[in-house]
Amino acid sequence: MIIHLAVFTWVDGVGETHVEELTTALQEMAAELPMLRAYHCGASLGLRPGADFGVVAVVDDAAALEAYLGSPGHRAVYDRLLGRMIAERQAVQIPFGSAGGVL
Amino acid sequence: MIIHLAVFTWVDGVGETHVEELTTALQEMAAELPMLRAYHCGASLGLRPGADFGVVAVVDDAAALEAYLGSPGHRAVYDRLLGRMIAERQAVQIPFGSAGGVL
Repeated sequence: MIIHLAVFTWVDGVGETHVEELTTALQEMAAELPMLRAYHCGASLGLRPGADFGVVAVVDDAAALEAYLGSPGHRAVYDRLLGRMIAERQAVQIPFGSAGGVL
Repeated sequence: MIIHLAVFTWVDGVGETHVEELTTALQEMAAELPMLRAYHCGASLGLRPGADFGVVAVVDDAAALEAYLGSPGHRAVYDRLLGRMIAERQAVQIPFGSAGGVL
């Protein structure tokens, strides 16, 4: 399995209501995407200085990753909300279970 | 529970052997840290353009996060390896289970 990590920093003017709307939309999207083995997203808890928002998505393989990122659901949330909020985005895909821990 | 996400981009000159050594050191560190509910780290699988390395760590709460990030084990890996490899680091902590999926 593969873990897709994405960390976002917002442009100025993104407020709590935008982030709440985005979080709900992403969670509703995830619930409809069967290729997602697990999906967690949310605004920073503010425990340390850093980015504003994070996403963790677990998929079986590269094909499932493409299906997820290319899905109409993902594209719709990006076009409607996420795309215009992003100042910076850092993403990476790493192997799941590299340390045996089950998230 | 809390998910700590960190995404790294390396400075020039960081090669595969450095990253393999780091990955092993982080996994050995994680195996010794009981506050970690789960821990996954690794080099980018290169499926999409993006950062070079990612870490996902799950802990119970803010105190456990501080215990993890402030642990001698984490500090040792940072001082010996990770610290000098980083060109950019983006991190965030988000709620676990915001979408019910079990990672």
